[in-house]
Amino acid sequence: MIKESGHENWAFPLLIPREYLMKEAEHIEGFAPEVAWVTRAGGNMEELEEPLAVRPTSETIIGPLIKRYIQSHRDLPKLTNQWNSVVRWEMRSRLFLRSREFWWQEGHTFHASAREAMDEVALILGYYRSIAEDWLAIPVLTGKKSPAETFPGAVYTLTLEGLMRDSLALQTGTSHYFGQNFARAYDISFSNRENERELCYSTSWGISTRLVGALVMAHGDDSGIIVPPKVAPIQVVVVPIFRDDEGRAKVERFIESWAPELKAAGIRHRVDWRDERPGDKYAHWELKGVPLRLNVGGRDADAGQVEMVDRLTRQKASVPVSGIGARLRTELDTFQKKLFERAQKFQRDNTFELETLGEVVAHFRERGGFVWAHWCGESDDEARIKTEAGGVTIRTVDESTSGKCLVCGKPAKYRVSLAKAY
Amino acid sequence: MIKESGHENWAFPLLIPREYLMKEAEHIEGFAPEVAWVTRAGGNMEELEEPLAVRPTSETIIGPLIKRYIQSHRDLPKLTNQWNSVVRWEMRSRLFLRSREFWWQEGHTFHASAREAMDEVALILGYYRSIAEDWLAIPVLTGKKSPAETFPGAVYTLTLEGLMRDSLALQTGTSHYFGQNFARAYDISFSNRENERELCYSTSWGISTRLVGALVMAHGDDSGIIVPPKVAPIQVVVVPIFRDDEGRAKVERFIESWAPELKAAGIRHRVDWRDERPGDKYAHWELKGVPLRLNVGGRDADAGQVEMVDRLTRQKASVPVSGIGARLRTELDTFQKKLFERAQKFQRDNTFELETLGEVVAHFRERGGFVWAHWCGESDDEARIKTEAGGVTIRTVDESTSGKCLVCGKPAKYRVSLAKAY
Repeated sequence: MIKESGHENWAFPLLIPREYLMKEAEHIEGFAPEVAWVTRAGGNMEELEEPLAVRPTSETIIGPLIKRYIQSHRDLPKLTNQWNSVVRWEMRSRLFLRSREFWWQEGHTFHASAREAMDEVALILGYYRSIAEDWLAIPVLTGKKSPAETFPGAVYTLTLEGLMRDSLALQTGTSHYFGQNFARAYDISFSNRENERELCYSTSWGISTRLVGALVMAHGDDSGIIVPPKVAPIQVVVVPIFRDDEGRAKVERFIESWAPELKAAGIRHRVDWRDERPGDKYAHWELKGVPLRLNVGGRDADAGQVEMVDRLTRQKASVPVSGIGARLRTELDTFQKKLFERAQKFQRDNTFELETLGEVVAHFRERGGFVWAHWCGESDDEARIKTEAGGVTIRTVDESTSGKCLVCGKPAKYRVSLAKAY
Repeated sequence: MIKESGHENWAFPLLIPREYLMKEAEHIEGFAPEVAWVTRAGGNMEELEEPLAVRPTSETIIGPLIKRYIQSHRDLPKLTNQWNSVVRWEMRSRLFLRSREFWWQEGHTFHASAREAMDEVALILGYYRSIAEDWLAIPVLTGKKSPAETFPGAVYTLTLEGLMRDSLALQTGTSHYFGQNFARAYDISFSNRENERELCYSTSWGISTRLVGALVMAHGDDSGIIVPPKVAPIQVVVVPIFRDDEGRAKVERFIESWAPELKAAGIRHRVDWRDERPGDKYAHWELKGVPLRLNVGGRDADAGQVEMVDRLTRQKASVPVSGIGARLRTELDTFQKKLFERAQKFQRDNTFELETLGEVVAHFRERGGFVWAHWCGESDDEARIKTEAGGVTIRTVDESTSGKCLVCGKPAKYRVSLAKAY
């Protein structure tokens, strides 16, 4: 999706001179507490003249480099993307969700008009929604972040928020509109159609290995993870069952008679010939969340069928091997759909409408989920929600002309979703 | 090729605790002079208890982590690969060839036998040769490195050596056999079939953005680079030629009538509608090395043909648009072949057989290229070659039972290729 919409992969440096990092005031205020610094290098670990930041995000190195490629409005838009890892010196780390190094793609784009840059930010949010919902089977709320939760240096931030099975919310991607803030800090300008110098309008957006955590926590159960078929490295695992060499040979011939059909149907599959007991293999592949398992023994070979077990419902079904490729394709599509519907139902069952701060406080004492309410827009009131409701934050903000602020009772400007979040 | 041969992509940390880096004595001796160190982190840039190395290569972080995944011979082989960037604090940097950060893939594998690990190292060298020759159109010599040029900590290193158009050699990839050296340093062991503990046999191998430099210097000329069609992001560029809006509309209709055929034929192409003069566009795409350019004007539209210009030979040809997809496919294949043949001829014309150090010294005073000679295997003699022939080094080493050492005249053990190299 990124490539098809005209973005190109670039590679920018890992290490950012301190001077570059320090140029956009709000940005550095947000990120300085999380930076790891290279201060020494070479055989004698000599002190560098200027410390280098290991990138926590790349706005501050892309800005000063990209300006060399932008002279005229004809050089715009510049649509860059890079796949890399970044380092943020988190004090409380949490596997996949908040780790000191994480892997992501970060897009950075530069435009000749505010309108075009804002359209870009919305376009990417749509891609991210599709990745979350259509691929990872995780339904998401989307909207703007409140000013308190906006990316440092951004005019506004769009966000996706998923709901995990412990009913905590998780931010699963963001798309930022910077207006001319970064262009001003790094003097990224172009001559417009009227031949006047004008500052660029820029954006950035990213999704990360945090999505792996989202996948685990949105779908997993006590037996392990459940991987949506569309992203499963192994969609179907085949477990052969036999007692002796003769039995093994028979099962092997049988599997080889139809396994090519799976490959032809584009199904990512593996036959597990490891030297382990079938029961251990079942547990192994359940833990790893493979959507469909086929158990295949001698009697199945005689009957020309396999036993199919579904990771989601645990239901067993006999499946004839005639036409097995097409059948499993259908089963995988159904699995993907059911997994999404289960997550949708969970989200619906855990979404509420409340009117006052008292109700919100009482709600989050008992349970989690998303709560819709109205807000006047005052940051003092936002801070009160967080304090009084034990860490509940505004997850998304939509414009609204109806309702009253849940905190102060004045006419609301916004409809907001609230949740405790990771 | 990496995936199809059973290797899996892993992600290992960017930052390596100093203690880990220090475990394999030869390895650290080789890399310590090139390490950049993270020594401070967080808001107050506090000093870390233990400095962290920005990885110069990942043996020393993969060793201590992979051992958790290896208990039994049934857990082997472990075939990992990662795509990342590494940092080496080079004092003399050179664009694409020796930069302080470079991008590469690094494979690291662990095996239950020496034989299997040695086969792995050879298999990968074959893949790298295919990438160099079949994709990048750069003929390479392959062989072992001499002990002096072997990777720090390796038992032996296999290498690929290409010849650039300035007749300097360039190492374009390496594949290392470690025996049990790293397994010993990091205690990576497994219980073998006899249920005894045994150290693993390991390998590593990598190719990097240095290959971009190789591509530039093996094929480029004074008008710019020449990109082999198989790896060209744009294989065919179309330059429309017109005087006014009417002319433009005519040319546009014409191009649209056959451009879909290019797409259907799987040809990566672009129509250059930028607001520039045709001559400037020609120079622009020559600089970028696009293999084929199609010039299309109003008269071409009338005649149902285009003018094709070849980046390699600069020859022009009229090409009818009927069947243009298949025709251009053939032209691109021919281009790829001709480019490789030209590089082969250049290599042949710059490869020599010499017998004495005196001849070698005289040769490299006048010209470059590869020189084949014989060597006894003594490191003193290897050092003398480098000193007396102004930086000439042994590029590859093959076993040999004939010939006399070019330095000392004793019976040779090896046939070696010599060159001045980047």
